[in-house]
Amino acid sequence: MSLTVVGSIAFDSVRTPFGERERMLGGSAVHFSLAASFFTEARIVGPVGDDFGSEELAVLEGRGVITDDIERVAGGETFFWRGHYDYDMNVAHTDDTQLNVFGAFEPKLSQASRRAQMLFLGNIQPQLQAEVRGGCREAEFAALDSMNLWIETEREALVAAIAEVDCVLLNDAEIRALTEEPNLARAARKVMAMGPEVVVAKRGEYGAALFTAEEFFAIPGYLLETVRDPTGAGDSFAGGFLGYLDSRRATGAPLLAHGTLRQAMAYGSVLASFNVEDFGTERVASLTIEEIEDRLRDLRRLTEFEVEPAEAG
Amino acid sequence: MSLTVVGSIAFDSVRTPFGERERMLGGSAVHFSLAASFFTEARIVGPVGDDFGSEELAVLEGRGVITDDIERVAGGETFFWRGHYDYDMNVAHTDDTQLNVFGAFEPKLSQASRRAQMLFLGNIQPQLQAEVRGGCREAEFAALDSMNLWIETEREALVAAIAEVDCVLLNDAEIRALTEEPNLARAARKVMAMGPEVVVAKRGEYGAALFTAEEFFAIPGYLLETVRDPTGAGDSFAGGFLGYLDSRRATGAPLLAHGTLRQAMAYGSVLASFNVEDFGTERVASLTIEEIEDRLRDLRRLTEFEVEPAEAG
Repeated sequence: MSLTVVGSIAFDSVRTPFGERERMLGGSAVHFSLAASFFTEARIVGPVGDDFGSEELAVLEGRGVITDDIERVAGGETFFWRGHYDYDMNVAHTDDTQLNVFGAFEPKLSQASRRAQMLFLGNIQPQLQAEVRGGCREAEFAALDSMNLWIETEREALVAAIAEVDCVLLNDAEIRALTEEPNLARAARKVMAMGPEVVVAKRGEYGAALFTAEEFFAIPGYLLETVRDPTGAGDSFAGGFLGYLDSRRATGAPLLAHGTLRQAMAYGSVLASFNVEDFGTERVASLTIEEIEDRLRDLRRLTEFEVEPAEAG
Repeated sequence: MSLTVVGSIAFDSVRTPFGERERMLGGSAVHFSLAASFFTEARIVGPVGDDFGSEELAVLEGRGVITDDIERVAGGETFFWRGHYDYDMNVAHTDDTQLNVFGAFEPKLSQASRRAQMLFLGNIQPQLQAEVRGGCREAEFAALDSMNLWIETEREALVAAIAEVDCVLLNDAEIRALTEEPNLARAARKVMAMGPEVVVAKRGEYGAALFTAEEFFAIPGYLLETVRDPTGAGDSFAGGFLGYLDSRRATGAPLLAHGTLRQAMAYGSVLASFNVEDFGTERVASLTIEEIEDRLRDLRRLTEFEVEPAEAG
């Protein structure tokens, strides 16, 4: 079992109605790898600057994430994002973005990372995603995330990158924008027509939906009374989803069996729900597999219903 | 079994990306009663003008809805709404509202309607809702809907009406606005503190969530490839939900058993999904109970997942 993630490693300064934090460890590859680490060996690939210290490294290594491919750019500074959320926590407001070393990032994967059987291409420039995919020949299953910026400015490159992966995970609004199709189910089919067999639509607090050629599946978000910071929820979802899939792959289970994909969706939803309970990586860094399994059972209980015919006609 | 609904009866002119229709039969009480009619005897109470003819009546009576308490206001015109939806079909844009006879509506219930064991107070002035509730002494279970206008302009009266009912069905944004609490689970608890035992948060295409003192339950929306007109989806949900509950009440089943409420949520979701497949009442008017049961099984299939422990740690 081995899962490589390529993406951003960041410092995030976040303000929400429930508090604020300065320069927390963040970034798509960080949230993803921490979530995946409960299920498989996660290898993180991304650039940092001189300001990235042993404290940040310890959070990743504390969860067993392999950090050998974190690229230290001498004299550089780590990607920085400042943002805030108002009462509608589904909407992130960006106040400042300093790409720093992430701006010139060209992923360099060690042989061990290139040999991972699963690959997640976090939200980076689509051409880089395609290049990384091309260099990881042994990855049986590759997935990517993206964002509106690339949909608007690099559509062709993004469609080319999508053609090379097995799975796309995007917000539902991004799937609609990418395909220019307002109906989500049709939009997902258009993405599948680009190549991938699996499309996952992330829907924020409302959960997520999964589409394959044969079926679709929807899971509501776990309803929490405490949501402190939604930053990284989507990456935590992706980490739980792919991490669980990799753990099943290792048992020889068919990866695209509906039951397996559904369980992966449920684990993704659970990891996302923990992520938002506290700022940055605070909650997931101290999480246990027992807490994950408990919440998975809870999530199942709060979504299941029996089918008995109604009385009248 | 008998379920009385008090609310609007309307003509709707609607434009969506998929077409437009002039002066279709609509209104909250209409959509509600048609949906409920698959499960119980539904009695509709609301005012119409001279322009309301036998064609409109035939749609309701075709589904067995009891129309005796439709109040014909001589010389008046029926409530008229004109609106449109752009590609985000979750947002209705109102272009024209003519309250007409609905503006001076004072519900007059026949003895048969007052004696119904279940009552749905559609979105009308909160004081009228409270008066109707007070006049229906035999109703074991009463529910209400409302809207932002009343939350903003008649908050006290609305809270007083809510105190008199067993169940509130509102959009999630309305529940947040009513309680001034951004977290939906906490907001629902605040609504329960006003009196009702059951709170249902309608979430548009994302489905719905149910809250009681002991549990919460979430159901995703049925994913459709064809959504032509979302008008009336919330009322169709409420009609399926309460109609099914009334059918169970008649069997002596405890109404607030979790399993019963969950199934009611599922039927609500199914009725809403049919409603949006075509304009106005077109789809629901021609629906069969077999189609409903088939989609219920589908909905269950597309939301269930197994819980098996993950492999690694």
